[in-house]
Amino acid sequence: MARRELELAGFGAYGPQVIDRLRWMTDVMRPVMADALAALPAPLDLRTLCAQAVEAGDECHNRNRAGTSLFIRELAPALLRVDAPSSDVAEVAQFLALSDYTFLNLSMPAAKVRADAAAGIDGSTIVTTMARNGTEFGIRVSGTGERWFTGPSQTIEGLYLPGYSREDANPDMGDSAITETVGLGGFALAAAPALGHYIGTSAEDAVRATLTMYEITCAESRHFRIPALGFRGAPLGIDVRKVVETGILPVIDTGIAHRQAGVGVIGGGIVRPPLKPFVEAVAELSRRDLAMS
Amino acid sequence: MARRELELAGFGAYGPQVIDRLRWMTDVMRPVMADALAALPAPLDLRTLCAQAVEAGDECHNRNRAGTSLFIRELAPALLRVDAPSSDVAEVAQFLALSDYTFLNLSMPAAKVRADAAAGIDGSTIVTTMARNGTEFGIRVSGTGERWFTGPSQTIEGLYLPGYSREDANPDMGDSAITETVGLGGFALAAAPALGHYIGTSAEDAVRATLTMYEITCAESRHFRIPALGFRGAPLGIDVRKVVETGILPVIDTGIAHRQAGVGVIGGGIVRPPLKPFVEAVAELSRRDLAMS
Repeated sequence: MARRELELAGFGAYGPQVIDRLRWMTDVMRPVMADALAALPAPLDLRTLCAQAVEAGDECHNRNRAGTSLFIRELAPALLRVDAPSSDVAEVAQFLALSDYTFLNLSMPAAKVRADAAAGIDGSTIVTTMARNGTEFGIRVSGTGERWFTGPSQTIEGLYLPGYSREDANPDMGDSAITETVGLGGFALAAAPALGHYIGTSAEDAVRATLTMYEITCAESRHFRIPALGFRGAPLGIDVRKVVETGILPVIDTGIAHRQAGVGVIGGGIVRPPLKPFVEAVAELSRRDLAMS
Repeated sequence: MARRELELAGFGAYGPQVIDRLRWMTDVMRPVMADALAALPAPLDLRTLCAQAVEAGDECHNRNRAGTSLFIRELAPALLRVDAPSSDVAEVAQFLALSDYTFLNLSMPAAKVRADAAAGIDGSTIVTTMARNGTEFGIRVSGTGERWFTGPSQTIEGLYLPGYSREDANPDMGDSAITETVGLGGFALAAAPALGHYIGTSAEDAVRATLTMYEITCAESRHFRIPALGFRGAPLGIDVRKVVETGILPVIDTGIAHRQAGVGVIGGGIVRPPLKPFVEAVAELSRRDLAMS
């Protein structure tokens, strides 16, 4: 399976190769990975892996070359101790190593767990989820619990793979913006200048994007430190009030999906959410605040 | 074997553990690695791996975390296809993954091959070797062939491991400065700000070190590109004339060896060569030039 098809598989593609690969993941890859993880001397520390990846030029959303390599380095000795047909284990190792995006499958759930830890705190104005379904962009905020605030999915500005253009693009789609929600992705873009080759930004754009995000966040990560900014912690915790006050919207770097279901990724770029959900979240938080007092 | 002992093993340590490990490398590791390399779909491209490592925060001399991880990622699928006792293969994988310095064992010979390609060109003033034996620092220059120009080994400025100090340090030692000779190491320090934790430099020091090296080199690498400098190619090809004219000496980042044989590495820092060999090389080149005309 070619590298490109692997990447397409994640974004609405459903051809026979994709379905076969999903079955293989369930039947072959899952038990091998379960055994390998059990054979590790200690559980994988995904926060540390993300921190090392950020130190090595990743932002853990669309650039995962270091993360993927660091992960395989941790796992390889354990894979070699798995008691399964060696051809199966070799195929798993091959699959993990093939795409730089392997680590995204770990950085996203790790981000989700981290964001969830901030959820459901009375009065908190911090965003705990950002997600898009290709039609709507939605956020959830700590102080308003499970409720979604939504607005229309926006157009992504970026670069297209050969043969595709803006006319083919679907509006912003996917749940990977959970990485931006915890200070990675577009928020840590200054750490990953090489991602510009894919999304059409310069190293200066990348630094500017991260610096701007400090204006709408409440903290700096103690773990994700950006070498190009003198190891300053990544901007962490989007505050809906700051977004509304400044009019600065979160920077999300993302893949561009074809508007026709089944084609998959046709490029990458930068997108901003609509302002509407942030305004509505602030209004709801104010309403609750008044009701409490 | 602990990570620290592994690193010590490279720098004059000769305890029983070191000797046992060297025997193991010959008897067990060598055949496993030979089989794994033969099983790769294509030969490993060390220049590309070095280039990717530089893009990911390494300078391929004292920071090799990305290089080591990228190398293991390339090799892991092949290791799983090796026809040897699985416990041997697992031990090899464990050993490769244990130390960030694994990749130095590849970046150094790759640098040597690259430097040798520039050797023996009549009239060329480019340095093709820099090496130190703890007493003397020597260079060889393209236009003067095999001849060594030497001066006294210098003191390294840097950080010490707990329990050691300047009094314990041997003057500059080792052949790893071949990395600086081809634009890596101290010359690419701007790419590896995190190395400062080991050698006692800031991110700004690292950028400054690399920028200064452009003043004594003849080219910029087309392969090793430094993200923090807007992907400018690393300073490549030390010109002995420029060293003498400017008085700027090459920046070498390096480990500090204990002055007592057998102890090994006790710290890391920055060292500069003595000026004398560069002056003598220029004099010899001038003499040859006159003899030719």
